[in-house]
Amino acid sequence: MPRPDGRVNDQLRHVRIQRGWLDHAEGSVLVEFGGTRVLCAASVQDSVPRWRRDSGMGWVTAEYAMLPRATNTRNDRESVKGKLGGRTQEISRLIGRSLRACVDFKALGTNTVTIDCDVLQADGGTRTAAITGAYVALADAVTWMRDKRLTKGDPLLTSVSAISVGVVEGEARLDLCYAEDVKADTDMNVVCTGDGRLIEVQGTAEGVPFSREELNQLLDLAQLGCADLTMMQKEALAR
Amino acid sequence: MPRPDGRVNDQLRHVRIQRGWLDHAEGSVLVEFGGTRVLCAASVQDSVPRWRRDSGMGWVTAEYAMLPRATNTRNDRESVKGKLGGRTQEISRLIGRSLRACVDFKALGTNTVTIDCDVLQADGGTRTAAITGAYVALADAVTWMRDKRLTKGDPLLTSVSAISVGVVEGEARLDLCYAEDVKADTDMNVVCTGDGRLIEVQGTAEGVPFSREELNQLLDLAQLGCADLTMMQKEALAR
Amino acid sequence: MPRPDGRVNDQLRHVRIQRGWLDHAEGSVLVEFGGTRVLCAASVQDSVPRWRRDSGMGWVTAEYAMLPRATNTRNDRESVKGKLGGRTQEISRLIGRSLRACVDFKALGTNTVTIDCDVLQADGGTRTAAITGAYVALADAVTWMRDKRLTKGDPLLTSVSAISVGVVEGEARLDLCYAEDVKADTDMNVVCTGDGRLIEVQGTAEGVPFSREELNQLLDLAQLGCADLTMMQKEALAR
Amino acid sequence: MPRPDGRVNDQLRHVRIQRGWLDHAEGSVLVEFGGTRVLCAASVQDSVPRWRRDSGMGWVTAEYAMLPRATNTRNDRESVKGKLGGRTQEISRLIGRSLRACVDFKALGTNTVTIDCDVLQADGGTRTAAITGAYVALADAVTWMRDKRLTKGDPLLTSVSAISVGVVEGEARLDLCYAEDVKADTDMNVVCTGDGRLIEVQGTAEGVPFSREELNQLLDLAQLGCADLTMMQKEALAR
Amino acid sequence: MPRPDGRVNDQLRHVRIQRGWLDHAEGSVLVEFGGTRVLCAASVQDSVPRWRRDSGMGWVTAEYAMLPRATNTRNDRESVKGKLGGRTQEISRLIGRSLRACVDFKALGTNTVTIDCDVLQADGGTRTAAITGAYVALADAVTWMRDKRLTKGDPLLTSVSAISVGVVEGEARLDLCYAEDVKADTDMNVVCTGDGRLIEVQGTAEGVPFSREELNQLLDLAQLGCADLTMMQKEALAR
Amino acid sequence: MPRPDGRVNDQLRHVRIQRGWLDHAEGSVLVEFGGTRVLCAASVQDSVPRWRRDSGMGWVTAEYAMLPRATNTRNDRESVKGKLGGRTQEISRLIGRSLRACVDFKALGTNTVTIDCDVLQADGGTRTAAITGAYVALADAVTWMRDKRLTKGDPLLTSVSAISVGVVEGEARLDLCYAEDVKADTDMNVVCTGDGRLIEVQGTAEGVPFSREELNQLLDLAQLGCADLTMMQKEALAR
Repeated sequence: MPRPDGRVNDQLRHVRIQRGWLDHAEGSVLVEFGGTRVLCAASVQDSVPRWRRDSGMGWVTAEYAMLPRATNTRNDRESVKGKLGGRTQEISRLIGRSLRACVDFKALGTNTVTIDCDVLQADGGTRTAAITGAYVALADAVTWMRDKRLTKGDPLLTSVSAISVGVVEGEARLDLCYAEDVKADTDMNVVCTGDGRLIEVQGTAEGVPFSREELNQLLDLAQLGCADLTMMQKEALAR
Repeated sequence: MPRPDGRVNDQLRHVRIQRGWLDHAEGSVLVEFGGTRVLCAASVQDSVPRWRRDSGMGWVTAEYAMLPRATNTRNDRESVKGKLGGRTQEISRLIGRSLRACVDFKALGTNTVTIDCDVLQADGGTRTAAITGAYVALADAVTWMRDKRLTKGDPLLTSVSAISVGVVEGEARLDLCYAEDVKADTDMNVVCTGDGRLIEVQGTAEGVPFSREELNQLLDLAQLGCADLTMMQKEALAR
Repeated sequence: MPRPDGRVNDQLRHVRIQRGWLDHAEGSVLVEFGGTRVLCAASVQDSVPRWRRDSGMGWVTAEYAMLPRATNTRNDRESVKGKLGGRTQEISRLIGRSLRACVDFKALGTNTVTIDCDVLQADGGTRTAAITGAYVALADAVTWMRDKRLTKGDPLLTSVSAISVGVVEGEARLDLCYAEDVKADTDMNVVCTGDGRLIEVQGTAEGVPFSREELNQLLDLAQLGCADLTMMQKEALAR
Repeated sequence: MPRPDGRVNDQLRHVRIQRGWLDHAEGSVLVEFGGTRVLCAASVQDSVPRWRRDSGMGWVTAEYAMLPRATNTRNDRESVKGKLGGRTQEISRLIGRSLRACVDFKALGTNTVTIDCDVLQADGGTRTAAITGAYVALADAVTWMRDKRLTKGDPLLTSVSAISVGVVEGEARLDLCYAEDVKADTDMNVVCTGDGRLIEVQGTAEGVPFSREELNQLLDLAQLGCADLTMMQKEALAR
Repeated sequence: MPRPDGRVNDQLRHVRIQRGWLDHAEGSVLVEFGGTRVLCAASVQDSVPRWRRDSGMGWVTAEYAMLPRATNTRNDRESVKGKLGGRTQEISRLIGRSLRACVDFKALGTNTVTIDCDVLQADGGTRTAAITGAYVALADAVTWMRDKRLTKGDPLLTSVSAISVGVVEGEARLDLCYAEDVKADTDMNVVCTGDGRLIEVQGTAEGVPFSREELNQLLDLAQLGCADLTMMQKEALAR
Repeated sequence: MPRPDGRVNDQLRHVRIQRGWLDHAEGSVLVEFGGTRVLCAASVQDSVPRWRRDSGMGWVTAEYAMLPRATNTRNDRESVKGKLGGRTQEISRLIGRSLRACVDFKALGTNTVTIDCDVLQADGGTRTAAITGAYVALADAVTWMRDKRLTKGDPLLTSVSAISVGVVEGEARLDLCYAEDVKADTDMNVVCTGDGRLIEVQGTAEGVPFSREELNQLLDLAQLGCADLTMMQKEALAR
């Protein structure tokens, strides 16, 4: 069975990383994975959360959200409903945790970087696009901080990228679009460092439980995908 | 005193209206008034609110929101705070009311069009840019509906555009940017129909109370600005 | 067409301003515009909001609310629903903004005056009655403060009153009652200073868009109405 | 020690019951116990809560609230805070329960009467004034219903009144004002039927635990007070 | 009519008080009144609420809650609903008030003890079981504090226990189980000190109003029940 | 380095599964993994969520929560705060998803089973204990349903258990207690079917990113642990 958009199984969608999309943010990126479009804005604040005080260390956190009409049918706003959904909070936590894995908090100084990841359009893989774009926005914010002499040494230990993989129609596939995502038997999100180690592995049997073999196949695919994304991040940051 | 961006007093900022910015929405527009950038997405639903049932008439409503880092410093998300601010609700109500003034609800059929106006970047005049863009998104959604034979005749009685005007440093100025907005003595938002009549006039003395003469001067300026915007809307819809 | 209560078009309803209606508040007024009855209570606090600190200036704010059975049919309480409606917040902001236009914040000292405007009974024009009554309550609170030597000079630059006007059945009318309000084509609320300048003009096309001529006619009517209200405020404060 | 307002221990404050204070409500009463002033509005609705359907019986419920400046210092609004305080809910439940004790729900028909008790000014005993006034508002609403032939027989089995009693400075006193309430060792609210039976007894040791003797003394006082209030309710309803 | 579980009218259900049920809490008790099972955990904190500061006195507070499936049919969680029910807050307030009646706050030092009472299973009398168990948990927490030298003298003036009584099928009965509670005409909760004085009396006519004679009969029964519970508390604390 | 409780690296803590801990629930289990104690209650309802209607299929969902003093220091209640934390929702979603992987929804009939997992005491691994206990409670509820002839065939496709694993002090360890959890470099939760396939794998680099080798080592350990838990579940269900 061919993929909906004609890709081969180990092929990423068209990825586009536009830096400096916003005038005010210390770092900002519009990242696209095919039809998925996420605006990542990094904001620097010269203080840390209360529980972090007196540690001499900084903090990095993230918030993920989706515009009401990012999806095929309109979703009610969480601000109007008056509460955050579980999915929103779960992804916000994942993004923050993933980015923190690449940060030296001593070097960051007693500053907080908040990365807002707002999904303008969704076509599968919004959380992995968000992490991949957020890293670039964070890198730009760190450069801004370095120019202001707010850091002590290099706060970025490595880079971070993320990709989704899944078993669809019996085949392991990279970077699922929405049409594939909804019929995947197994769905996995993998976050990697720039040097290929793992930060987060979240595999879920949506339909049928999966074996260690399938897990390994998916991880192989994901690590290749993340290596490609790492290169695209480097190129974007070099521009 | 020259204006911060060198414009003359009766000059609009650079206005850009990009249609079809989203794949899923029945109508979508990215509208820019200088540095102000608002994404307007129109969603069509084949039902009406409960209180509207059995009337045979449709409904149009709008929701306005701002991304956390649209502004110079980051604002907390209303979804995280768990409640909508007064300003957000006030502007949402204004946009919905303004658009409804141009709609024939019988012709719209028993459908609801919701226009989401999300400010991606703010530099003054976000509500007027939102109304101006929202009309174009609404027009595209109405075309989509007409193609699906969901309407009965033309639901759009006229077009709608909006502009801010204000007294800054003793001078009446058109389309205030943020730097002007914060020091304006009088601040006014005006919503007009395509044929120059008034839908909404909201004038506020921020500093010094104003006279009928000043009010008239501002209204003259606003009606000229709206006439220009009406032409740009027509051009955008003709593309 | 005669008006529902037999008034001529430029006639106010019976206005009654009772000062000192509450024992505890530093200023309190029960204001009636015909069947509309609003209790305005001014509370003085010897501190200012956080963002106002170190400015040496005071603050004036207002909260508007309606009792559940102020209206023809009972409305659910916003406290029970757990959130403030958009209309409530919008009117609270309008009242606060209007009162602040008449205050010299340096002279007020680092104090906050909060004016609670609770609608006990509603028959149209609740926001304009609230503003008109709130000014008198504020004036009484300022006298109380002056007696306690909390002010530095006179904090009141002018007086403030407000009235609604509208186009009903093709005629410009002053001080709409509820029965007129619901069928008005254009509805406008105007806030004036005691010397006839404008603080706030909010005109809305409920049905048909309006022309500059209609706007002017309504403004003429409103400024006359506010002048009458200014006199009644003076008389009430002189008693 | 004399009481703050010079009353003897078994003396009620000046009680005033004004019927028909509101134009829209089916029953409305402004009740005063000295400086305590509560507006009670009864609203009739021709339906019952979901859990009550198919029972053929009606329902009576109540909501209690206090205006922000009813008290000596201003309290934040529960609608602004976004949640109801425990005290508010507790008193609302007490008022509803007390009124229901006098209602024949079969005779009421499948209607709901909601009694809103809004404290305009507080000087102790707000909940007992509210119950006493609410009964009169309920009686007026029932008369209104009877005139509309919405009832089947007499829905009111008896009348209901309530009073506070307490041990202050070692003495049992009737109808405590605020100054007495805050220093009472024991504080009790008693709700009685018109024929002297008990509907609710809520006694609390604020300072020192109390004995059966003290309890009995307080109950004697309360039953006398309620008998007086019953007469005043009858007189008010006869006017 | 025999009671559902065969008890005589003045007989308590099987009461079991297990201390030290939790490893972390400074005091913890699993208390059972028949099928009613409440976990009471006392937490000591070396600070007091803001309004209590600079008083040199401590504070005791309580929170009551019920697990969703404590009851016969599942109830929605209040955390999911996003607000506390009136009943929950009312009982939390009652427990806190009852415990505070036995505490010398000077001797407690500037510490706060919070007692969480979580109903694991409900079969009537959950609030009285909670108070009875909470006192034992408090006593253990106070012992823990004394060992840490956090107290100044003995903070416990007396012990506290509570029981429900009611008129069921015309008979005064002690310690109602759920099946009796739902059909009781009068329902009363009584909180006593260890030496038999009263802290709280809350009697409610659920069906028919009650007389002083019935009230007295119920109080006699309740005081006997509380005396028994006091002994069981002593035995539990002596183990 | 020995483990805090003296276990070897591939050793589970003492696991105890008590069925029938509650009288009302259709299935209930008190599960203990060492000091971690979770009460799992399964509730059967003869309907399905709205979005599931007309599918002929049932539903299984779960809610996870922690008592305030389950932990070393007291946490504020989410019901009092008025919103669910991200962690709570994330774990609730994980438990529900894991259980659904073992259910044949056609066979379940149009019924919903809700599993409440309330942590009475926490010492690491609360979510894995919850899943392991919840399966047993679900199995008991399914038996109850089968006895009532509410099912069509066997709704349970397999069993489900879960365990945590982690890299602590450079060693892969099974079933981390809290003291190990806080210092783990990598932390992973694994959910398995009774026949050893994977339902969910969630690995997180808390400190240092991890390699595929480490991941494999942890998965080996987890699958062994789940196999042991599967046997204990069988034994418990056979009792």
